Amino acid sequence: MPSPPNLDNLGLATALAKARKSYHEGGVPIGAALVYHSGDTPVVLGCAHNQRIQKSSPTLHAEIAALEDAGRQKAAVYRHSTMYTTLSPCIMCTGAILLYKIPRVVIGENVNWVGGEDLLKKHGVEVVVLDDPECKTLMKRYIEEKPEDWNEDIGE
Amino acid sequence: MPSPPNLDNLGLATALAKARKSYHEGGVPIGAALVYHSGDTPVVLGCAHNQRIQKSSPTLHAEIAALEDAGRQKAAVYRHSTMYTTLSPCIMCTGAILLYKIPRVVIGENVNWVGGEDLLKKHGVEVVVLDDPECKTLMKRYIEEKPEDWNEDIGE
Ligand SMILES: [Ca+2]
Ligand SMILES: [Ca+2]
Ligand SMILES: [Zn+2]
Ligand SMILES: [Zn+2]
Repeated sequence: MPSPPNLDNLGLATALAKARKSYHEGGVPIGAALVYHSGDTPVVLGCAHNQRIQKSSPTLHAEIAALEDAGRQKAAVYRHSTMYTTLSPCIMCTGAILLYKIPRVVIGENVNWVGGEDLLKKHGVEVVVLDDPECKTLMKRYIEEKPEDWNEDIGE
Repeated sequence: MPSPPNLDNLGLATALAKARKSYHEGGVPIGAALVYHSGDTPVVLGCAHNQRIQKSSPTLHAEIAALEDAGRQKAAVYRHSTMYTTLSPCIMCTGAILLYKIPRVVIGENVNWVGGEDLLKKHGVEVVVLDDPECKTLMKRYIEEKPEDWNEDIGE
């Protein structure tokens, strides 16, 4: 299920827009989008940002929130979808991707933090890292500005 | 952080009560409780059941819902807590337990289904399986009655 690079840029841009929104709300600036690839036209099933601050939530990381935004879906839908996320997914979100057997994950950047990429690959998930400058800049700024909130988000 | 067996029975009973509530609501009958062990008196920080049916949620498995019920907690709290769950935790919930470095997981049963127990152990988490007859009976009944909902819950 390869997507042309421009479609990946579109998916990441959707996730990044959510990350920016979260940043401007004072929240953790990580965004995600679950995109279903059906024929020629991809469909954004769900897109969301981390909700730790906004909803006082310890589990609504961006990827979990995007799955939640997409709602209940049949197994076949997940298996033809790509998860876009602005930052390397943590072990919880990695587990969610594996639970639903999402075959492909596109990551904005893994310079500021690295999550469960090895576990994804070990289970045959295609992992693409775009090394996006805007994702890197936004996350770096946040970690410097609010290290306590960030540490709480990764269980440190 | 060993707990006497009677405390584990108390934690599991809390989780099982939620599982039964979910069953009577027509939902997936899995319950969980996050219990903080501080000195002599354990505290139930959060307890909840699977919310797939009740809230049309693909991510509020019992363990995720219990973490959500507990709200934002400092890292040190999770590291002195036990997660009780009526059924072996899936890979998403396993990931959530690893994210927050919860050191101990007590499982009602792993006969009807086995999740990420090996990954928990590999990361040094203490895993206790109580092989509880009531957990087994409730889950077995549900899987027979609503196989489609159950399969959806495990990404099948
Ligand atoms: Ca959305
Ligand atoms: Ca509760
Ligand atoms: Zn995460
Ligand atoms: Zn689960």
